[in-house]
Amino acid sequence: MSQIYDRVALIGLGLIASSMFWAMKRAGLAGEVTGYARSAATRETARRIGLCDRVCDTVEEAVEGADLAVLCVPVGAMGAVAEQMAPVLKPGATVSDVGSVKRHVIEAVSPHIPEGVHFIPAHPLAGTEHSGPESGFAELFDNRWSLLVPVEGSDPDAIAKLRALWEGMGSNVDEMDADHHDLVLAVTSHAPHLIAYTMVGVADDLRRVTDTEVIKYSAAGFRDFTRIAASDPTMWRDVFLTNKDATLEILGRFTEELFALQRAIRTGDGEQLFDYFTRTRAIRRGIIDAGQDTDAPDFGRGKTPT
Amino acid sequence: MSQIYDRVALIGLGLIASSMFWAMKRAGLAGEVTGYARSAATRETARRIGLCDRVCDTVEEAVEGADLAVLCVPVGAMGAVAEQMAPVLKPGATVSDVGSVKRHVIEAVSPHIPEGVHFIPAHPLAGTEHSGPESGFAELFDNRWSLLVPVEGSDPDAIAKLRALWEGMGSNVDEMDADHHDLVLAVTSHAPHLIAYTMVGVADDLRRVTDTEVIKYSAAGFRDFTRIAASDPTMWRDVFLTNKDATLEILGRFTEELFALQRAIRTGDGEQLFDYFTRTRAIRRGIIDAGQDTDAPDFGRGKTPT
Repeated sequence: MSQIYDRVALIGLGLIASSMFWAMKRAGLAGEVTGYARSAATRETARRIGLCDRVCDTVEEAVEGADLAVLCVPVGAMGAVAEQMAPVLKPGATVSDVGSVKRHVIEAVSPHIPEGVHFIPAHPLAGTEHSGPESGFAELFDNRWSLLVPVEGSDPDAIAKLRALWEGMGSNVDEMDADHHDLVLAVTSHAPHLIAYTMVGVADDLRRVTDTEVIKYSAAGFRDFTRIAASDPTMWRDVFLTNKDATLEILGRFTEELFALQRAIRTGDGEQLFDYFTRTRAIRRGIIDAGQDTDAPDFGRGKTPT
Repeated sequence: MSQIYDRVALIGLGLIASSMFWAMKRAGLAGEVTGYARSAATRETARRIGLCDRVCDTVEEAVEGADLAVLCVPVGAMGAVAEQMAPVLKPGATVSDVGSVKRHVIEAVSPHIPEGVHFIPAHPLAGTEHSGPESGFAELFDNRWSLLVPVEGSDPDAIAKLRALWEGMGSNVDEMDADHHDLVLAVTSHAPHLIAYTMVGVADDLRRVTDTEVIKYSAAGFRDFTRIAASDPTMWRDVFLTNKDATLEILGRFTEELFALQRAIRTGDGEQLFDYFTRTRAIRRGIIDAGQDTDAPDFGRGKTPT
């Protein structure tokens, strides 16, 4: 794989940015990669583990001279960071982001993008329950989808370069418009996360079942909810606040269906339950066929505690 | 590990029974293991793959002479199977089960247990999303919890033997009363399963997002829900119908909390969301410390599609 950008700046050094760094290095996609994090401790960690070729103490220093600057901060902070970097962005540079919400990011960032600079929002659909500069790894994006959400009038060459970067980091790439992105993600990510957070909260609250019991007996299904509900609180707060409408719409649909199934339980309608549970199996098969999960039985996790 | 029972009969040959067979063989816990399944195709498969020392064409044949007979059929079928096996149970034998619900099983099975036979309900908290005679493996119960739910007046020696069997198959063993078991499982398993089934159903129903999109972009969180929602429909129908009260109680609590979080989203109360999401991380830490899951980032699944 050959170099795509001479200089890339990563603003915010969490799970996604650190994985991007290692993935770019793996494939030799960038000449120099600079990095900035607001917290001095994070910058210190980054320097210690060799994350980024150069860790900078200001946004401006990191972005100056960059061909690509990527906003890797929580969605709620992107507008302010874009404003801060605007004066030093060089003509012809590309600004992108990795936020889980796109309409809000476009509204918050676009006004700060100078004439002659390309803004191409993006979102890699990859992650783990871990966060911070030490949680990244080069393989995070392999065979995962990254979505580019170009705004109107985006430069085709700039889009092609960003696409090549994501493909070079291992991703499959699709393009999508912002509103559809936000709806699709509300279904596949935002609503499931809120539901998982809620269920874990309920278990924690319930006085008649102890936390110890919940923890010991979690392998019966609950465990997977806790993994999702361990994700970064700041990031998720911002996601829900900025993708409010789509998330609330999906949660509304969810509640409606849940009530229908609750009624089936209450009235003893086994047929409705059986039919519903049979139908949901097909989606699982599709995910395995599409290579987005394996069919291996999920038992090994925790099998050999260390 | 030495032999605990001379003759064990497994009634129903799905994931749990087949895993029990391989786990008993691994440790040499049983002399002869007989097996029965209602479906001729399942019995045929069992004979082909060497599941059970002897596959029988009737319940009676499988149970006759057994020191331990284990009901491994869906919870809704246990009463009828118990009635069928009752005439051939030998004095001093133990009857147990592996159902996910205990109060209902006790009510359905107890009346059929003859004088001089011990009935000790049990529930191994282990499983995968696969079902059927070919889905079992010897390691399924390793480091998982199995709960014994002895009814009043159970023989201590019979309980001790059954405990030794489960420990020999790799489990940790706890004892619990039936109603508490059903509540704990409603929290850690039954409610999470219904919620996962519901969310997958919503995604499948939504006309504005295609199934293809849901499948391609599932790695963002939804994927784990589909795994849970791929579990056996008959088994889960019976679980919800027979643990109705506890499941509905937990779902009620869940809905209440979900509404509170939805309101926080609607009103933009970021602090409430942040605090909630921070609290749920602690439970996750407990599960990892207890050896019920690993801290490895969950990214590898599907990384290399085959």
